[in-house]
Amino acid sequence: VATQGSGTRVAQRPSGDVATAARQRTEHPPRYDLRPGSPDLSAFPRSAWLSAARRALNKAPYEAFGYSDPRGRPELRAALAAYLARARGVRCDPERIVICSGFAQTFRLLCDVLTRQGARSLALEQFVEPTTDAVSAASELNVRRLPVDEAGAVTGQLSDEDAVVLTAAHQFAIGVPLARHRRAEALVWAHDTGGLIIEDDYDGEFRYDRHPVGALQSLAPEHVVYAGTASKSLAPGLRLGWMVPPAHLLEDIVTAKTVADRNSSAIDQLTLTEVIASGGYDRHVRRARISYRRRRDQLIATLRQRAPEAEISGIAAGLHALVTLPAGLEEHTMVERAGARGLAVTGLRKFAAPADLPSPALLVGYATPPPHAFTGAVARLCAALDG
Amino acid sequence: VATQGSGTRVAQRPSGDVATAARQRTEHPPRYDLRPGSPDLSAFPRSAWLSAARRALNKAPYEAFGYSDPRGRPELRAALAAYLARARGVRCDPERIVICSGFAQTFRLLCDVLTRQGARSLALEQFVEPTTDAVSAASELNVRRLPVDEAGAVTGQLSDEDAVVLTAAHQFAIGVPLARHRRAEALVWAHDTGGLIIEDDYDGEFRYDRHPVGALQSLAPEHVVYAGTASKSLAPGLRLGWMVPPAHLLEDIVTAKTVADRNSSAIDQLTLTEVIASGGYDRHVRRARISYRRRRDQLIATLRQRAPEAEISGIAAGLHALVTLPAGLEEHTMVERAGARGLAVTGLRKFAAPADLPSPALLVGYATPPPHAFTGAVARLCAALDG
Repeated sequence: VATQGSGTRVAQRPSGDVATAARQRTEHPPRYDLRPGSPDLSAFPRSAWLSAARRALNKAPYEAFGYSDPRGRPELRAALAAYLARARGVRCDPERIVICSGFAQTFRLLCDVLTRQGARSLALEQFVEPTTDAVSAASELNVRRLPVDEAGAVTGQLSDEDAVVLTAAHQFAIGVPLARHRRAEALVWAHDTGGLIIEDDYDGEFRYDRHPVGALQSLAPEHVVYAGTASKSLAPGLRLGWMVPPAHLLEDIVTAKTVADRNSSAIDQLTLTEVIASGGYDRHVRRARISYRRRRDQLIATLRQRAPEAEISGIAAGLHALVTLPAGLEEHTMVERAGARGLAVTGLRKFAAPADLPSPALLVGYATPPPHAFTGAVARLCAALDG
Repeated sequence: VATQGSGTRVAQRPSGDVATAARQRTEHPPRYDLRPGSPDLSAFPRSAWLSAARRALNKAPYEAFGYSDPRGRPELRAALAAYLARARGVRCDPERIVICSGFAQTFRLLCDVLTRQGARSLALEQFVEPTTDAVSAASELNVRRLPVDEAGAVTGQLSDEDAVVLTAAHQFAIGVPLARHRRAEALVWAHDTGGLIIEDDYDGEFRYDRHPVGALQSLAPEHVVYAGTASKSLAPGLRLGWMVPPAHLLEDIVTAKTVADRNSSAIDQLTLTEVIASGGYDRHVRRARISYRRRRDQLIATLRQRAPEAEISGIAAGLHALVTLPAGLEEHTMVERAGARGLAVTGLRKFAAPADLPSPALLVGYATPPPHAFTGAVARLCAALDG
């Protein structure tokens, strides 16, 4: 029996904003772009992808073109299980992987399952990717924000929430990994309360200064959903992500996926399988890591020289740096000044909880521009910081 | 503010069934398959698709690999607007098309939008594809079933529902087009009550005996959401569908798509654009139509000869025929007998509303088997009918 008259719904504020932003990004791409959240799209390995598509189309059984296992193609789940164990230390079995359309869908399905199981509240970090905010705002879950400091999310403040989303390898805005004691506190919370940890490992492949931080999931696979994506390692346009949920959630997630869209695109899945199996995925990530580290170094060197009063942090990993603005410079002023120079930048406040007013800063996505536009983008950033 | 304590949720019966069925279909494909709902997957135009992917990857702007307009790639929306106007008489503008992951997602997004706008009930036809049933059961909408007769859904029985799903070109199980007076009744209902018609045009391309039945949407584009798919014309594994909603629903649908999965796979969208633009889509549909008409004729001829007591109907269009079982033969007996011969078939009851007990019949999907297995499948069907 359907629930009737359940009263006022969640306001849709952020979702509409996110949809509008995505549309504008397509219709009016800026000349220079240092917004965070995107790899260098001009580096997408088109010919490697096409060769992999040829191999995939040649060898696919014809059943692959039909309605398929809602968890995703078995070929891709097998390739990912091996890759995730090796590259991210994830403990998983191909039977327990669910392929989704990016992290957005992974998180949406988890919100659906949690709500259906009676969950009422969810904790997000103080700073999150706007789509994460939009998806949770569109759910019926009450959202609490966990403060974030130089050790990552303050997991000691978790209490009776049903789930928490943690960017454990690299806090989305601040750029720090979740410290060892914070990991321990999150795991104790999950163990004691039955709360679910959703590990958003959006850019775990990109760590520059030391060994990768392994997945939190490996410590407690029955309390953590590991969520990965090809959006940063290859391209968001692929809309391919994956999750490794605890066994007790698998059936409900499969049902949620089925009533969301049955399964994800078969040809993309089979092509990604070939890209991983041929070593092309590792090669691309390695090349991208070298390129982004160089860009990061160039960004730091240029800012230190031309805008020494701007503080840079969160640089050990990921695709963006946090640049704290010089005293007296507001984010919106900086966004306007950059815009006047053809450069799109994003202030930290866009990623903060509505009531939160962090110190004025930019999240500088140094991976975003194509190579020919990178130096020009950084020069315009410095010029805008200068006034 | 999120709604709390909204009580018991919709039972998940059908969703779980659909997920299990999809998984079994992948893990244990039957030797012979005459279940409905699939085109001949062995005829998927792999080399045309690969050539189109090459052209698409060569010419795509790099922005195409990023997060993109939630409505879908502008190239595909332009190609589809022209195609749908020409082939199905749909009145549309590329700005108003939304690309989805198949009809399942189209319908899911519409259920989300309707619920959020305060809708409480939905009418489905007496016989529907099980995923449609599962998606609506997982929503908070109350579902009513409209009887179906030889003129299609009895739209005169529509009353205070907020929306109705109509397979107007070809009723899913019975195989008849919605008669002219039934179309008129549906449109009057929509006009008078503000109810929304969701036109599920799942196989509108496949009509054998006369000109295609044009889309209902063309008569009242502000009351009808036209929903099409590549699942029957090309392959379900592509997960590509599209909808043309009334203008007043567009923004909410775009928001729902954004919080579902942001946008659909870019490479598949750009490849389909090339397939349509090169004429490959029309050629494939034409070839498939000829092949399916031959199969249909062979099925009819063979059944008339070897099982004259089985009645065949719904044969003027689509990818399946309704075969009424001889008196005394129950569906489950027939499914078992066929199974013992390595043939998978589906009884009509699987598509009926839970309380409904239609006369024992099979929905024979004559498009499903690859060519080499078709004659054998029909022979096994006849043998199973014989006992």
